[in-house]
Amino acid sequence: MRIIVDAFGGDNAPLEIIKGALMAVKEFNVDICLTGHSEKIKKIAAQNNLDLRRIDVVHADRVIPADAPATDIMKEYADSSMAMGLNMIANYKGDGFVSAGNSGALCVGSTLIVKRLKGLKRPGFAPILPSFDGGCFMILDAGANIDARPEMLRQFAILGSVYMKNVMNVENPRVALANVGTEPQKGRELQQATYKLLKETPINFIGNLEGRDIPTGACDVYVCDGFTGNLILKTYEGVAKSMSTVVGDIFKKNVRTKLGASFVYRDLMKFKADMNADKYGGAPILGIKKPVFKAHGSSNAEAIFNAIRLMVDYIKADVTTKLEDSFNELKEK
Amino acid sequence: MRIIVDAFGGDNAPLEIIKGALMAVKEFNVDICLTGHSEKIKKIAAQNNLDLRRIDVVHADRVIPADAPATDIMKEYADSSMAMGLNMIANYKGDGFVSAGNSGALCVGSTLIVKRLKGLKRPGFAPILPSFDGGCFMILDAGANIDARPEMLRQFAILGSVYMKNVMNVENPRVALANVGTEPQKGRELQQATYKLLKETPINFIGNLEGRDIPTGACDVYVCDGFTGNLILKTYEGVAKSMSTVVGDIFKKNVRTKLGASFVYRDLMKFKADMNADKYGGAPILGIKKPVFKAHGSSNAEAIFNAIRLMVDYIKADVTTKLEDSFNELKEK
Repeated sequence: MRIIVDAFGGDNAPLEIIKGALMAVKEFNVDICLTGHSEKIKKIAAQNNLDLRRIDVVHADRVIPADAPATDIMKEYADSSMAMGLNMIANYKGDGFVSAGNSGALCVGSTLIVKRLKGLKRPGFAPILPSFDGGCFMILDAGANIDARPEMLRQFAILGSVYMKNVMNVENPRVALANVGTEPQKGRELQQATYKLLKETPINFIGNLEGRDIPTGACDVYVCDGFTGNLILKTYEGVAKSMSTVVGDIFKKNVRTKLGASFVYRDLMKFKADMNADKYGGAPILGIKKPVFKAHGSSNAEAIFNAIRLMVDYIKADVTTKLEDSFNELKEK
Repeated sequence: MRIIVDAFGGDNAPLEIIKGALMAVKEFNVDICLTGHSEKIKKIAAQNNLDLRRIDVVHADRVIPADAPATDIMKEYADSSMAMGLNMIANYKGDGFVSAGNSGALCVGSTLIVKRLKGLKRPGFAPILPSFDGGCFMILDAGANIDARPEMLRQFAILGSVYMKNVMNVENPRVALANVGTEPQKGRELQQATYKLLKETPINFIGNLEGRDIPTGACDVYVCDGFTGNLILKTYEGVAKSMSTVVGDIFKKNVRTKLGASFVYRDLMKFKADMNADKYGGAPILGIKKPVFKAHGSSNAEAIFNAIRLMVDYIKADVTTKLEDSFNELKEK
C-alpha cells in the first residue's frame, strides 16, 4: 500500500506534514510518498533531525495557494504538489492521496484527474465533526457542489453511510436530511423529493433533522446540498471556536480565575480532546475512484497521521468496491 | 400606545407572560392587552397575587399548538389567542403584537391578517442572536420564506438595516450576505445576483460573509433565504447550548470542580448573561404594517418585558414609516 501526501498543503507545511508521514510509516508499515519541493523538504527534514530514508519524495515546483480559484488546479497549478499527487493516484502510482491544501481545488482536481466512481453523479466533500456527546457525525456535501438534485443527495446518503460503517465503525449509521422541520413535507422541492427517495433507499434513514439537533449527536450522516452544508459546517466550527476562546479567556483573566481553572483542568482538557476534529482525519472527498482526504488547513502532525490512518482503513476495507456495489444494486432495482 | 400580548404563547404561558406584561406597564406606562382564556388568566393572576387592574384581557377560547401547521392560524385556529391579537392590530385596536407561540403561524398570520408594507415582496423572520464579542446580530430571513429571489434579499437587507439602526441603535449597520466564500462570484445564482443588487443599494453592504465569521460579530445583519437562515440559526443556537451544557456539567461533576467553579462564577455568569438572547426581545417579523414580535418559546417574564420594550422603541421611532420611505426611495431610482 502506497499513500501519497501533499507536503505543501496547509498552514503548517511542510514540517508537520513530514512529521505526520513519518509517524504513519512507523505505525502502519505503509509506503509514503511526499509531493512538493524536494530541496525544501530535505532541508527542513535535516534541520529537524528527521530521517527521510523510509519516505519517497517526488518533486513539484509549486504549491496551489489556499485562496486560488478551485479550477486553477487544472490550469495555472497543474504542476503543483497537489496536482502531482492526484495524477500519481490516477496513474496507479499510489493508492490514496492526503492534502491539507485548498479544499475547492482538491475537490475539482479529484473529480477531473482521478475521476468519479462509475454510476456516481457527483462526489461530495464530507468533513467529520465532533458532536457534544463524545461522538462524531459527517456533513455531506459540505461544499463540493453548490447546487444539488434529489438523486445526488440520495447518492451522498449512500456514500456517507458506507463510509461511516466501514471506516468509522459505526453500526447501522443513522442518515438524516438537513431540513427546517421534521415533517416529510418540510423544506424546498429538493428536500421533499429527496425525503421520498431516501425512504426507499436501503440505508438507515431517520428522517429530516433540524440544525439544533446535530450538536447532540442525533445522526451519523447529515445530508445536504453543498451551499447549505458549507454554511452549517462553518457556523458549527465558528461557534465552538468562539465559545472556547471566551471560556479560555475567562480562566486566564487573573490569579483567582487561573486557580479556578486548575480545579477543572483535567476535565476541560478531556473535553477539548474530545472536540478535536483532528482525530477524525479531516474530510474524505467521497465518490472518487481512489481515496482522497482533505486534512484541515491547520493540521499538525497528529492530524496528518490520523488522515493516513483512516485512509489505510479505507483501503483495507475496500470501501471503493463497496460503494460501486451499492450503486449497482440501486440501479438494478 | 397600546400593545397586544398573546398570553398563551410559549412554554411558560400564561404566568410568565402576565408577569412580563405587568413589568412593562409599570416601566413604560403603556396600555397592555392580553389575549387568551380570560378565566384562566384571572385565576392564575389571583393565585400569584398579580394585580391585573392596569391590564385589559380580551378572551380567546383556544391556543394554536406549537407544532400545528403554520396555515392553521387562518383556519382551525382563527379564533386562537394569536389570531385574536393579530386581528386586533389589523383593526386598529392595538399598535403592535407580541407572541411567544408558533413561529410559522405568527409569520403567516402577520402576512395574511395584518398585511405587509406597501412595496414589500415578502416579510422576513428576523431573530437577533448574541455574538461572542458581547454584541448581537440579526439573521434575516430565518425561516419565513423557504425560497427567495434577489429582490427579496435586497429588501431583507433594507429591513434589517433600518431595524438595527432605529431599534437596536447600531450606527451604520453592517449588512452581509451569507455565502460560501467572500468573492463576489461565490455561491448560487441567487447570491451572485443579490451581491450585485446590494452593491447598488444605499446601505452599508460589507460583502459576502462565511458562517465562521458570524459568531465573532463581523456583521449586524446576515442576509439569506429562509431555508439557509433557519439552519444557520438552529445550528448556532444548538452548538452554543450543547457547549454550555458540557461546560456546566464539568463544573458540577464533583466537590473539586464545584470549588473551581466558585472562582470563575462571576465571570461565567456575566458571559451567560451576555449570551442570553432574551435581552434582545426575540425576533421581529419585519415588513408587516404593524410591529409583530416573536418572543422565544422558552420566554420568561424578562424576555416578554424586553420584547415589549423593543416594540415601544420601534413604535416611537416610527420604523414602519421609515421602512416605507426606504422602499419608495428605491423604487424612484
